[in-house]
Amino acid sequence: MRAALSLAARGLGRTWPNPAVGCVLVRGGAVIGRGWTQPGGRPHAETEALARARSLSGGIEGGGAEGATAYVTLEPCNHYGKTPPCALALVEAKVARVVVACQDPDPRVAGGGLTRLRDAGIEVTTGVCEAEALALNEGFFNRITLGRPLVTLKVASTLDGRIATATGESQWITGPTARAWGHRLRASHDAILVGIGTALADDPELTCRLPGLEDRSPVRVVVDSSLRLPPTAKLATGAGRIPSWIVTGPSADPARTQALTALGVEVIPVATDADGRIDPAAAMTALAARGITRVLVEGGASIAGALLGAGLVDRLEWFRAASLIGGDGLPAVAGFGVEALAAMARFERAAVRGAGADLAESYRRIPAKASV
Amino acid sequence: MRAALSLAARGLGRTWPNPAVGCVLVRGGAVIGRGWTQPGGRPHAETEALARARSLSGGIEGGGAEGATAYVTLEPCNHYGKTPPCALALVEAKVARVVVACQDPDPRVAGGGLTRLRDAGIEVTTGVCEAEALALNEGFFNRITLGRPLVTLKVASTLDGRIATATGESQWITGPTARAWGHRLRASHDAILVGIGTALADDPELTCRLPGLEDRSPVRVVVDSSLRLPPTAKLATGAGRIPSWIVTGPSADPARTQALTALGVEVIPVATDADGRIDPAAAMTALAARGITRVLVEGGASIAGALLGAGLVDRLEWFRAASLIGGDGLPAVAGFGVEALAAMARFERAAVRGAGADLAESYRRIPAKASV
Repeated sequence: MRAALSLAARGLGRTWPNPAVGCVLVRGGAVIGRGWTQPGGRPHAETEALARARSLSGGIEGGGAEGATAYVTLEPCNHYGKTPPCALALVEAKVARVVVACQDPDPRVAGGGLTRLRDAGIEVTTGVCEAEALALNEGFFNRITLGRPLVTLKVASTLDGRIATATGESQWITGPTARAWGHRLRASHDAILVGIGTALADDPELTCRLPGLEDRSPVRVVVDSSLRLPPTAKLATGAGRIPSWIVTGPSADPARTQALTALGVEVIPVATDADGRIDPAAAMTALAARGITRVLVEGGASIAGALLGAGLVDRLEWFRAASLIGGDGLPAVAGFGVEALAAMARFERAAVRGAGADLAESYRRIPAKASV
Repeated sequence: MRAALSLAARGLGRTWPNPAVGCVLVRGGAVIGRGWTQPGGRPHAETEALARARSLSGGIEGGGAEGATAYVTLEPCNHYGKTPPCALALVEAKVARVVVACQDPDPRVAGGGLTRLRDAGIEVTTGVCEAEALALNEGFFNRITLGRPLVTLKVASTLDGRIATATGESQWITGPTARAWGHRLRASHDAILVGIGTALADDPELTCRLPGLEDRSPVRVVVDSSLRLPPTAKLATGAGRIPSWIVTGPSADPARTQALTALGVEVIPVATDADGRIDPAAAMTALAARGITRVLVEGGASIAGALLGAGLVDRLEWFRAASLIGGDGLPAVAGFGVEALAAMARFERAAVRGAGADLAESYRRIPAKASV
C-alpha cells in the first residue's frame, strides 16, 4: 500500500477535479501491474494497473490479473462516467482480493464500489494506511465534503516574520534551495493564489520553473475585488498558455472584464463583504465548484490574514531565512483580529527540515474545538 | 578533552569574571582527578583536579598526579592572583604531559603558562578540540579581546514573529517545555538584560526557577535611560537577594538613584545618543568592565532592535510556537534601519530542536565581511 500511495502522490496537482489514486497488482509475491491517476483525472489508477498486467500476460483480454491482489489507495469507483467503473473492471479481471486504504466520500461511490466487489466474491480489506491516504487526498475530500479546496499557505520570511523591507525589497530573502522547494510545491497543487497587491507589485508568472516540471504549472488565481489587474500583466498575457483566473467582486467593470476575457482570463465574480473585500469562503467555494482541490496561497499579507481569520488555512509551508529585518519590514500576515492569545490561529508541527541555509517548516491546522 | 569540556560547561554563568575551565587527570588509562572552575571563578579547574588526585593517593603533598596527563580546556594560568599559578601547580605535581584546547588571551597569561610547563620539561600539546573550547568561553574571550560580553538574544514568538497581541497579552505564547529551556539558558549566563518597557509591563523577577537551579540566577540588568524603574518593582525590592543593576543615562535623577541604591540596586550611568537612548555598545562595555562575560537579552523589541542594529548580537535562541497572531501584534524586534535586504542581520543555523509543541532554534552571527 505504501508503494500505491507513492504512485498516487505523482498525480497530485494534475488529477483535479478527481482524486490522485495509486494501484499496485501483486500475485505470487511479484508486482504484475502499477498505475496512478493520469493528468486530467483519467484513466484511473486501476485501469492503468490492469492494462500493465494485461500487457505482461501477452494481451489476452481480461487476462493477466486473475487471482491477484489489488492494493488501491481509494475505494474503486462504481459509476459510469467517461469511463466504466473501476470496481467492474477489477471484477472482470478476476482479481482475488482488493485492499483499500480509504473509502470514497463522493456520493456516486460512497461504499458502492466495495459492495460491488464483495458481491462478486472478491475478498475486500479496508483501512490499510488510512490516515496517509486521507491526508494525501485531503484536497479532494475537502472539495466533496466541505465544498472548498485544501488551502496551503506558503510563506518565505525572515526569523522575525518579515517578507520584505520597509521599502518593499523582497527578492530574495530565502536561498535557492528554498525557492526550488517552493516551485516543487507549485507542481503538486491545482492552483496558486495571490492577492492583487502581490500581482501588481511583482508582476509574477506563478509558474513551476523546475527543470523537467515546466508542464506542471497549476492554474494561477488572483483575488482582485476591483479588477485592477492590467491586461499587460504577465498573468493576463500568458493566460492562453497556462490558465489564469481572477476572483473579483459582483460589480466588476464590464470593459475590464471583456479586455481580460479576450486574453483568455476567466473572471469569476463572488460575494464581497461590507468593505468591498472578497469573502474568502466565497472565493474558495468558487474554486471548488470549478474542480480545484488543492490551492497554494503565495501572498501577500492581506490575503494570508483574511484566510487565517476565516479559519480556511489547512496547512502552512514556511521557508525561513536565518536573518532579521526588524519591525518596520512588511509582515508575512496582516492583522486578522487576534486580540487575545486564546484566539491565535493554532497549528501543529508536521515536519522541519533544513533547506540550505534556510529552514523549511510544515504545519497542519489544529481543528477548532467546536468542530472536534 | 571532551570530558574536560563537559566539566567546564558546568561553570558557565557562575565563574565570571573568569573563564569556565575543565581539567581531567589521566594515568595508566584511568581518570585520577577531575575539576572545573568553581562559582566565583576560584578555585581553578587544575587546582580542583590535583586536589582530587592527592586525595586519591592518600593525601601525600604533591603526590598523586606524578607522571599523569592533564587535559585542560584552557591554557593554565601563569600569574599570582588570589591563588598561585596553575602552571606552577602542574609542574610541582610532576605531571608528565599537558594537553590544552586553546590559549588564554588574557595578557597576564597569553602563552606564558605553556612556556612555564615546557621549561619544566613537561610535554605540551595544544589545539585539541580548539573550536569547541573557543565557543564555550566565547564570552570570556569577547570580554578580554573586545571589551564586551557575549550577547545572546532570546525570543519567544509565534510563527509570524509576534511576542504579544495588539492588546499586550503575551503570557504564554510558548509552552512549558520551551519556558523551562529558557530558564535553563538563564542559569548558564552571567546576566539577564531587559529594557525598561519590559520591566514596567511585566514586573518580572528574571530568576532561574528550575528545581535545583534556584541558586543559579544571574545578575538582572535593566536598560533604563531615564531611571523609570519604581523602587516597588520586584527587580528593585529583590536586589538584596539577587543583584540588580540599572544601566541609565549620564544625568539620572539623584533622588531616584538614591532610592534604588538604598535597596541594593547598582545604578550604572553610561552614554546616550542624541535622542537620549542608551548607547548599546556603551552599555555592553560597562557590563564587561564589571566582569560580565555572558549576557542573555530577554526583551523587549526596542532593546533587541538596538542591539541588532549595533551588530552586537552574537547568538539567537528563538523559541517558536506553532501559532499566528497577525500583523497587528507586537513584533519581536523593533525596526533597526534595514532598508535593503543586503543590510539584513544575518545568522547561521547552529541547531533546531523540538521543544514540546514549539521549536527551539539556535543561531550564531555571521561575521560582517569587513571583520573576516
